[in-house]
Amino acid sequence: MRDGKLLGEFFLNVGLTHSSTLMPMVVSLLRNADVSVRDVDLFAVSNGPGSFTGVRIGVSTVKGMAQPLAKPCAGVSTLLAMAYNLIGTDSLICCAMDARCRQVYTALFESKDGRIVRLTDDDAVSLDDLLEKLRGFGRKITFVGDGAELCYNAFCGCLPDIALAPPSLRYQRASGVAAAVFAEDTEIRSVPAEELNVSYLRLSQAERERKQKLEAQKS
Amino acid sequence: MRDGKLLGEFFLNVGLTHSSTLMPMVVSLLRNADVSVRDVDLFAVSNGPGSFTGVRIGVSTVKGMAQPLAKPCAGVSTLLAMAYNLIGTDSLICCAMDARCRQVYTALFESKDGRIVRLTDDDAVSLDDLLEKLRGFGRKITFVGDGAELCYNAFCGCLPDIALAPPSLRYQRASGVAAAVFAEDTEIRSVPAEELNVSYLRLSQAERERKQKLEAQKS
Repeated sequence: MRDGKLLGEFFLNVGLTHSSTLMPMVVSLLRNADVSVRDVDLFAVSNGPGSFTGVRIGVSTVKGMAQPLAKPCAGVSTLLAMAYNLIGTDSLICCAMDARCRQVYTALFESKDGRIVRLTDDDAVSLDDLLEKLRGFGRKITFVGDGAELCYNAFCGCLPDIALAPPSLRYQRASGVAAAVFAEDTEIRSVPAEELNVSYLRLSQAERERKQKLEAQKS
Repeated sequence: MRDGKLLGEFFLNVGLTHSSTLMPMVVSLLRNADVSVRDVDLFAVSNGPGSFTGVRIGVSTVKGMAQPLAKPCAGVSTLLAMAYNLIGTDSLICCAMDARCRQVYTALFESKDGRIVRLTDDDAVSLDDLLEKLRGFGRKITFVGDGAELCYNAFCGCLPDIALAPPSLRYQRASGVAAAVFAEDTEIRSVPAEELNVSYLRLSQAERERKQKLEAQKS
């Protein structure tokens, strides 16, 4: 983005690993836009929640580009970024990413006066707990994210007025990350590349297993 | 798109000519998505209104890919395609492309039950005529397209409740073209590549000059 205008975006959702697709996409986007990586003033990236490996690849790639150029970075919640897909909607926005085992990474937002307003923190919850939370809002709810369909199917009949975001706006996109930065969303901080970090919400499987092992040794 | 799911999209809006950017973007998108051009079942393209040269390059490129493979094509109104950026909105959708000299290519749509419904035909009108038309609708109006800001600035104060589509949803996108096809919009027809044609709404400058010349010779 430049001066709040979207210059270019490369979106891919074909199940290939970020490690093989991300850099070719970045190179192709910059080359086709005739922009050098040196022209970039700020590198923004969705830094979680999401797939542990995917988030690590994204954040590492951005660090690798920004650090040698001493350019600032911004980590944006994946859930906040995808809420920007539905800016302008009158319904409650429920961002949901599939976290396996009938759990979702989720947060609630609304669009107000052309801005996205966060209503709840990013959280990893069960579908049952999310349903309880959503019952409290007496308004239309639109689901967005790769867990949107999961939620929609689970809550159909339980909640009075729910909808799925249309396919072309269903998933997180780089333009949502950029839009959040340009909207000067108060939760986004610009930091040196060294300080950019991931935000997983819960421990990775390897860390959970290590913790269990350590606790078992203690007892 | 496959089965209504967006697989990939390459968006660019940097003022470079389509003739130098379009094919590299297509190649890069297919390569990164690991999809062969032979895997494509239908080639859809926005076939106008818009820049005469831009529309011709887009339509010719699609013909060039589809014809040797004997695959069907679909021409989608650029204005209809960009209405899909705002699917789910409660406001009236006014698509507007800058046609120079305070004229716009425009059409009105609304989002109803998860579908885009066309309210007026694609037309080339002056800003004054568009304002008169819009006065008849007693509801919020959101402007989308590269003429959106032009309309917004011209109508501010004249219309009670108007808004600009957010930057990331402001311009026509390939995903809007695909979304219109997958929504089985009734105005879209699948045709052999030979029958795919442009839809300019008005004559090009060269054709206007030729017409004037011929008429001058006659009189």
